[in-house]
Amino acid sequence: MRFFSDNAAPVHPAVLDAMVAANVLDTAYDGDRWSQQLDGAFSDLFETSVKVLWVPTGTAANCLALTALCPPHGGIVCHRDAHIQVDEAGAPEFYTHGAKLLLADGPGAKLTPDAIRAVTDAIRPDVHQVQPHAVSITNATEYGLAYTPDEVAAIGDLAREKGWGLHMDGARFANAVAHLGCSPAEVTWRAGVDALSFGCVKNGGMSAEALIFFRPELAAPILYRRKRAGLLFSKGRYLAAQLLAMLEGDLWLENGHAANAGARLLAAAAGDRLVYPVEANEVFLRVTADEAASLRALGFDFYDWGVGEARLVISWNQTEAEIAPLAKAIAAL
Amino acid sequence: MRFFSDNAAPVHPAVLDAMVAANVLDTAYDGDRWSQQLDGAFSDLFETSVKVLWVPTGTAANCLALTALCPPHGGIVCHRDAHIQVDEAGAPEFYTHGAKLLLADGPGAKLTPDAIRAVTDAIRPDVHQVQPHAVSITNATEYGLAYTPDEVAAIGDLAREKGWGLHMDGARFANAVAHLGCSPAEVTWRAGVDALSFGCVKNGGMSAEALIFFRPELAAPILYRRKRAGLLFSKGRYLAAQLLAMLEGDLWLENGHAANAGARLLAAAAGDRLVYPVEANEVFLRVTADEAASLRALGFDFYDWGVGEARLVISWNQTEAEIAPLAKAIAAL
Amino acid sequence: MRFFSDNAAPVHPAVLDAMVAANVLDTAYDGDRWSQQLDGAFSDLFETSVKVLWVPTGTAANCLALTALCPPHGGIVCHRDAHIQVDEAGAPEFYTHGAKLLLADGPGAKLTPDAIRAVTDAIRPDVHQVQPHAVSITNATEYGLAYTPDEVAAIGDLAREKGWGLHMDGARFANAVAHLGCSPAEVTWRAGVDALSFGCVKNGGMSAEALIFFRPELAAPILYRRKRAGLLFSKGRYLAAQLLAMLEGDLWLENGHAANAGARLLAAAAGDRLVYPVEANEVFLRVTADEAASLRALGFDFYDWGVGEARLVISWNQTEAEIAPLAKAIAAL
Amino acid sequence: MRFFSDNAAPVHPAVLDAMVAANVLDTAYDGDRWSQQLDGAFSDLFETSVKVLWVPTGTAANCLALTALCPPHGGIVCHRDAHIQVDEAGAPEFYTHGAKLLLADGPGAKLTPDAIRAVTDAIRPDVHQVQPHAVSITNATEYGLAYTPDEVAAIGDLAREKGWGLHMDGARFANAVAHLGCSPAEVTWRAGVDALSFGCVKNGGMSAEALIFFRPELAAPILYRRKRAGLLFSKGRYLAAQLLAMLEGDLWLENGHAANAGARLLAAAAGDRLVYPVEANEVFLRVTADEAASLRALGFDFYDWGVGEARLVISWNQTEAEIAPLAKAIAAL
Repeated sequence: MRFFSDNAAPVHPAVLDAMVAANVLDTAYDGDRWSQQLDGAFSDLFETSVKVLWVPTGTAANCLALTALCPPHGGIVCHRDAHIQVDEAGAPEFYTHGAKLLLADGPGAKLTPDAIRAVTDAIRPDVHQVQPHAVSITNATEYGLAYTPDEVAAIGDLAREKGWGLHMDGARFANAVAHLGCSPAEVTWRAGVDALSFGCVKNGGMSAEALIFFRPELAAPILYRRKRAGLLFSKGRYLAAQLLAMLEGDLWLENGHAANAGARLLAAAAGDRLVYPVEANEVFLRVTADEAASLRALGFDFYDWGVGEARLVISWNQTEAEIAPLAKAIAAL
Repeated sequence: MRFFSDNAAPVHPAVLDAMVAANVLDTAYDGDRWSQQLDGAFSDLFETSVKVLWVPTGTAANCLALTALCPPHGGIVCHRDAHIQVDEAGAPEFYTHGAKLLLADGPGAKLTPDAIRAVTDAIRPDVHQVQPHAVSITNATEYGLAYTPDEVAAIGDLAREKGWGLHMDGARFANAVAHLGCSPAEVTWRAGVDALSFGCVKNGGMSAEALIFFRPELAAPILYRRKRAGLLFSKGRYLAAQLLAMLEGDLWLENGHAANAGARLLAAAAGDRLVYPVEANEVFLRVTADEAASLRALGFDFYDWGVGEARLVISWNQTEAEIAPLAKAIAAL
Repeated sequence: MRFFSDNAAPVHPAVLDAMVAANVLDTAYDGDRWSQQLDGAFSDLFETSVKVLWVPTGTAANCLALTALCPPHGGIVCHRDAHIQVDEAGAPEFYTHGAKLLLADGPGAKLTPDAIRAVTDAIRPDVHQVQPHAVSITNATEYGLAYTPDEVAAIGDLAREKGWGLHMDGARFANAVAHLGCSPAEVTWRAGVDALSFGCVKNGGMSAEALIFFRPELAAPILYRRKRAGLLFSKGRYLAAQLLAMLEGDLWLENGHAANAGARLLAAAAGDRLVYPVEANEVFLRVTADEAASLRALGFDFYDWGVGEARLVISWNQTEAEIAPLAKAIAAL
Repeated sequence: MRFFSDNAAPVHPAVLDAMVAANVLDTAYDGDRWSQQLDGAFSDLFETSVKVLWVPTGTAANCLALTALCPPHGGIVCHRDAHIQVDEAGAPEFYTHGAKLLLADGPGAKLTPDAIRAVTDAIRPDVHQVQPHAVSITNATEYGLAYTPDEVAAIGDLAREKGWGLHMDGARFANAVAHLGCSPAEVTWRAGVDALSFGCVKNGGMSAEALIFFRPELAAPILYRRKRAGLLFSKGRYLAAQLLAMLEGDLWLENGHAANAGARLLAAAAGDRLVYPVEANEVFLRVTADEAASLRALGFDFYDWGVGEARLVISWNQTEAEIAPLAKAIAAL
């Protein structure tokens, strides 16, 4: 059984059905009737007027958002373990034309105002040093922790005070919200977030993420940037249809709940082995190399995460029947 | 009826079926079993060993190809009406980090060695001027003309003599090959082409183009560039499956033939109104504003193309039954 | 005698003296007492409050100015023969991160509102095409013509109407103003210019140009861009001293008058051979290859400028005694 | 007395004289007779055939060098405190089009093969992570330590093994060589260095650094990049003359010795207060805020360097008479 990542899971049937239903002639690019519904649908979800762009990958969503918030000569504060720093192959630098990621620390890949200030207070406000223009946080974090609305708001307050933009990488936003039980609005724009990468691909989608601007005026130049990045699909309706299907009946949230529940099964079995509290759909375990090998011998696949740790990720479609044997095996270690 | 473009047509059922069939768990990115078949399948088609990358748009395919062939300080010769110059929103400049498009002329958006030399011979070989490093041609051209193998080879010879790379934008490659009746190899690498954007989206695909490198060593850095551009889908199998479905039973070519046949119906009706010979699936007509209005009044949609001209494009799925009324209306003008 | 260009002439003694006088310890970068005088000195000259940055080359001045006026995804309208298009090796694309130069036509490298509109009216206002954000004009033009205040104002009005920035490449601004007899203010900010590259290197300076922002708020990010481009000299006082020396007693204008006067000597001798009216310090002549050869045989060096034309440029330091023999030779052709 | 930095000191009279002597008409750009001597003069100094480009700043030299060694999607290993990381405002990212600086640790801003491997061994060799392509070291380091030829060679061996380029930022190369007593060749190309920023501005020059390529084939594209960066001065002779003056009679080395000697005076007085051994012309002292204030009250200016430390830099022209009072004051703390 695969517990490598949620990024390769199958597509939810409702999403696939929506794509099939979109297989009719319509206007090209984002002029079709699916794409035209996105602003409204997400404005409803977020209880405020937003502008939404479909993009095919989380990297694209993150980087276009950063482009809106930071000039080429600026800096973006993020965690040292943030996906944009570690696993996007320099895409932020490409999209922003060379902005610098300013790396902050914090347990579980989570930032705090103090952690951010520790980085930015050390920057001389002169032209020789790259000045911060934005902050990017990931919710849920790369280690499966959820920022609460208050935690985000504390960072949002700092950002506003300093005149910085605030981006949230929500590759696993559904998992975070499912854990928090708050409204999507509370943990985003009400807490000061300017742009959100609303992830769907890890959560039952195929190839569509929603880039959401809570300050709608930010979107206009990004429409040009999206095209300029080769990301303006001529048949955009197949992306928009995915997003709408995810919103329909709150499928996005249901899938988030499902994956989180699976992770909790593992967490319960793992006991003291947990490196971090399990809040979303990722479980980090302390295991020896021998223990890891024994799990693999039983047919469970997962990533080693540094020395003595393993990462297990639950996908939206993994059932208790699939997960229980792993939980049992972990408990038996 | 819509004759705006082939870029918004529905997806061929075989392509959609292939995507649905790919809706199982597999390895992420391009490690899945569909993606792993691409090099082989396209090597068979092109009768030589090629490296293939799936990408979601023609703009992405073109621009990644150019990035492989031209340094940031170089220039790329293309036609003044080339898609990369006119309709990609500066994407070539973005991907290549500022390379300059050097604009050549020629009827029907078609280049010749002489047309290219007219541009490049005027460039002083000193550091004050941007030096040509590559040529990009579109086959079929933006005006629906097909370069023959000999015509490409003449440009290929020049490129080789000068040390330039040669890229072919094949957004409508199928239409060109269907018209030419040659093998794909003859009109590409055997004629000196280094990289081809093998278009599928306009030809029955949903969201996948094949970027083909005939000099396989060019591909290695572009794998990084694809990721860095936010184009490495985590569920790449849905793109690879589209491409494989297009190759299966030469569906790509069949669709090209179908669209071309439809265009010939219109051409036959248009007589002296044709601005260019109809070789692919585009028809450019001389029509007055009144004539255009009368066609539209009959329910036919299309683009005006400058003053006194109209562009009509036939998609893979448009039947004779759909096209015949337009042909009749044109004949009756 | 050399009539190739004014760009290699010696440095005016007053400029060199000022540099020698600056050879004392002072604050680094632009914190020294010379640099600190620049805003005031140029504000006096231009009769308005300006922000000034020293930079070492005209290319740097032009490109930093364009960076202030055009985003990476935007376009800059300039003449097809503009220095930024022809002779800066893609520096505008580098500095602006890939903005596109949109090429307009006009005799003598001079733009008009109509010439600009002919380019920009053809651009569809959609995301597929690069939208104009700025205009750049050269005064005096690359062919030695001066824009009058009214001509600039007509372009400035168009720019304001459209929301575009307006840059003036003033590599030979002194020659233009010397010809026009107007105030520097009249032909710049009063006519709608936002940023001026105030050239000194061709006019008696060594290695300093003044980049002048008439909208002072544009300067703040460009201070970062200058540093980021490796252009923030640690001993900036030697650049600032050059500029101050050029302003002292209006040396810049005196040198412009001197060079223009020399060009008029040639123009008077050239009669019908003149390709353009001689308004600044450049003379373009119709000459056959044999005639050009005969002039060279007499020891006069100059550039051929296309077929059947020659370009002769007079420098600030060339005396009537040096120029008269060439005038005589031209008259005798 | 100023001990802030060596970057604002006056220009050595011999350098200024050479510039005055160059104040005659000659060919523009780097076609003049001074520029044409550079390859030969530096090839003599380095006992091998090198290609040399004058550039005006150390940042420009460093960044053009990195551009030659690292593609836009690559990474450059440097020390966390390296000038290119800390004090160049993102210029490396600008010039390289977004390459990533990969930060290594080590006392005194000095790298070792182990320190480098600690960074690069943690990078997965896949397309999701930025791969190292080059290493940049600073000699003398930002903390005034000199890499010995053996230390450089150990890094050079690693670089060669891995296929990485090796750049040396020699803003204070003269101080390093003066300390080491080795030949310039030993500590550069013989130890595996591909490109050197040979600093002059901090060492008696005005506005010229030499960018030296020990693999001459690297220089050709950089000639275009220099122009494209707005760094190709039309009167290049004034830069070349500075560099030749620095080489004449080994003035560069003499100045390095002079500054080092001054630093040793302070070091002798500082005793246990030294944070690092004093090898070049920088002295880092442990001082309390009160002690720093008392030194300033005596008229000595310098930078605080973090909490409880001060940085004192000696310039080429500071005499024992100037330095002795500070030494005395330090000893008396």
